[in-house]
Amino acid sequence: MSKVVSPLSWKDGVLSLLDQRKLPLEEIIVENKTIEDAYNSIKDMVVRGAPLIGYTGIFGMALFARGNRGASIDEYKKAAEYLNSSRPTAVNLAYELDRCVELIDQLINAGNSEKIEDELISFGHAQLDLIHRDNLAMANIAMKDLIERFGKRKYRIMTLCNTGYLACGPMGTALGVISHLFENDLIEHVYASETRPYMQGARLTSYELKKQGVPHDIVVEGSFSYLMKNKLVDAIFIGADRIVKNGDTANKIGSSTLSIVAKHYGVPFFVVAPTSSFDFTSEEGSEIPIEMRDENEILSFRDQRVAPEGTSALNPSFDVTDANCITGIICESGMIDPVTRENLLKVTGQE
Amino acid sequence: MSKVVSPLSWKDGVLSLLDQRKLPLEEIIVENKTIEDAYNSIKDMVVRGAPLIGYTGIFGMALFARGNRGASIDEYKKAAEYLNSSRPTAVNLAYELDRCVELIDQLINAGNSEKIEDELISFGHAQLDLIHRDNLAMANIAMKDLIERFGKRKYRIMTLCNTGYLACGPMGTALGVISHLFENDLIEHVYASETRPYMQGARLTSYELKKQGVPHDIVVEGSFSYLMKNKLVDAIFIGADRIVKNGDTANKIGSSTLSIVAKHYGVPFFVVAPTSSFDFTSEEGSEIPIEMRDENEILSFRDQRVAPEGTSALNPSFDVTDANCITGIICESGMIDPVTRENLLKVTGQE
Repeated sequence: MSKVVSPLSWKDGVLSLLDQRKLPLEEIIVENKTIEDAYNSIKDMVVRGAPLIGYTGIFGMALFARGNRGASIDEYKKAAEYLNSSRPTAVNLAYELDRCVELIDQLINAGNSEKIEDELISFGHAQLDLIHRDNLAMANIAMKDLIERFGKRKYRIMTLCNTGYLACGPMGTALGVISHLFENDLIEHVYASETRPYMQGARLTSYELKKQGVPHDIVVEGSFSYLMKNKLVDAIFIGADRIVKNGDTANKIGSSTLSIVAKHYGVPFFVVAPTSSFDFTSEEGSEIPIEMRDENEILSFRDQRVAPEGTSALNPSFDVTDANCITGIICESGMIDPVTRENLLKVTGQE
Repeated sequence: MSKVVSPLSWKDGVLSLLDQRKLPLEEIIVENKTIEDAYNSIKDMVVRGAPLIGYTGIFGMALFARGNRGASIDEYKKAAEYLNSSRPTAVNLAYELDRCVELIDQLINAGNSEKIEDELISFGHAQLDLIHRDNLAMANIAMKDLIERFGKRKYRIMTLCNTGYLACGPMGTALGVISHLFENDLIEHVYASETRPYMQGARLTSYELKKQGVPHDIVVEGSFSYLMKNKLVDAIFIGADRIVKNGDTANKIGSSTLSIVAKHYGVPFFVVAPTSSFDFTSEEGSEIPIEMRDENEILSFRDQRVAPEGTSALNPSFDVTDANCITGIICESGMIDPVTRENLLKVTGQE
């Protein structure tokens, strides 16, 4: 085990971000002192993971306030629009920036412009505390379920992509569950799917597991059936980018394939996501737009070509897991099991 | 389209193998002059694909005969055992080596030891002619099935790993089907799964498809569900490393996962393999040994580390697809559909 490096921290007007592009090989801190620095850190993927991008947005606004004391609300709105344009598809970023602008508007109207920087910093830290509390609640719900399901013993858990503190700040969602199980001496082994093409599993999940000392192996996505046929996995936990009303869940490409194989073998498959990932405006998964990313993520590796020149690739970044392939959705307010529209609205308090 | 380079050829005591590890970026020929050269070419994956490994075994025995004139049958048997130890899962290698030993035994008993090298070379070439004829027969059976199933139109076909001429010599099995469909103007698009960790799909299948001018995209294994949920695939064809009596099929890791997703969505899933890939001594898939390969195939890419130092990986090279997830097995003597023990023995003429 080695010292955990925080993916995001604020001290004396400097936003320090762990450069996730360089992980796991190097731990490099990027210091952000201006809103332009924060913009570039998001755009160039120094930070990743929807929650962490959102928090970077909040502290980016604090950097703007620090450098532009006495700015008008219109100038703040422009700054927020600028930051939001760094990753236009990230929903959390727009959400957090909207809330920053609301807060700034209130402070200006109340004649408290001089407090904007401090209040934004407080807001940012409050959001980090909140996700920590929510993710811990979800981890406890998952732990309770496993103990009820299998008895209190050490479990073999599988996960895909990276859903740990690198994506969320203080503690992860699905990987937060694993980390929490390990702290409670309930982990025998973790299988981390490497997550082609961007390798978040091989690079980032293994980095977190190794820091914590959790016994694990990286596997390829092709191994899903092998692992479950050979009874190496007790349960699967993944995160979510968006969950719609009927429980259909958009997540990293490979998630839906994993869920189908899990259902085939009767292995419990859980989605772990705070209610902020729920989209109550969409009825079913077919309404979720799927981001297509650059084919070179598949065709090349670190600028070394893998495929023949002229060959193309299809690179959907996400897929949609059908509600009927999900054993349960865990959010901070409870376990949604079975995954039905009624149950989802009930547990999230939307009915 | 560019000139096809043969993956295996013999001339004047030299076995020339196209180094498939270097494809698609470089076309390099490795010259094998001793049985040790042939052993290393198989072990180090200069050649791959069950049939081509088998033929390399035959010509490897010819190299031994050439270098050890007057060897005893026991020495030949030892040589065959040595070659067979290079890759444990592929049944073709053992099969071809057994036939070599039989042939050698007959020649020695008949006092024709001096003919061993020439006879082995003739045997090797006869096997290459035979696979061409058999694979063409299988491609015609597959084409007939698709036309009956969907009507005569252009199909969207998916495949995994490489099962083309690079794996088989003159013509492929599953990729031979695709190539044959394309020649008959029946291909709309091919999805070639990249096949982690060794990238046979991205490197080799795309190399063959590109040589032939077949429209295709490379996809990651995680995309299986995405592709079929979005109705982008009409049918799937894969090869086989070993098929046992009940129809359970060992093939490249990812095949079983793909078959489960195909069954979930009702997409026809075919195995294309000559009867030499059938193992009539095993009753079911659980009896097939699965080769575990070096974890560095997953942890690194071309000697660049991907995962953190100290992290491990589990790297099974094959998995076993359940007979009940296979729509049909196509061998040179016909289509085994449904895939039952009785039907398999009937079609292959073993009953």
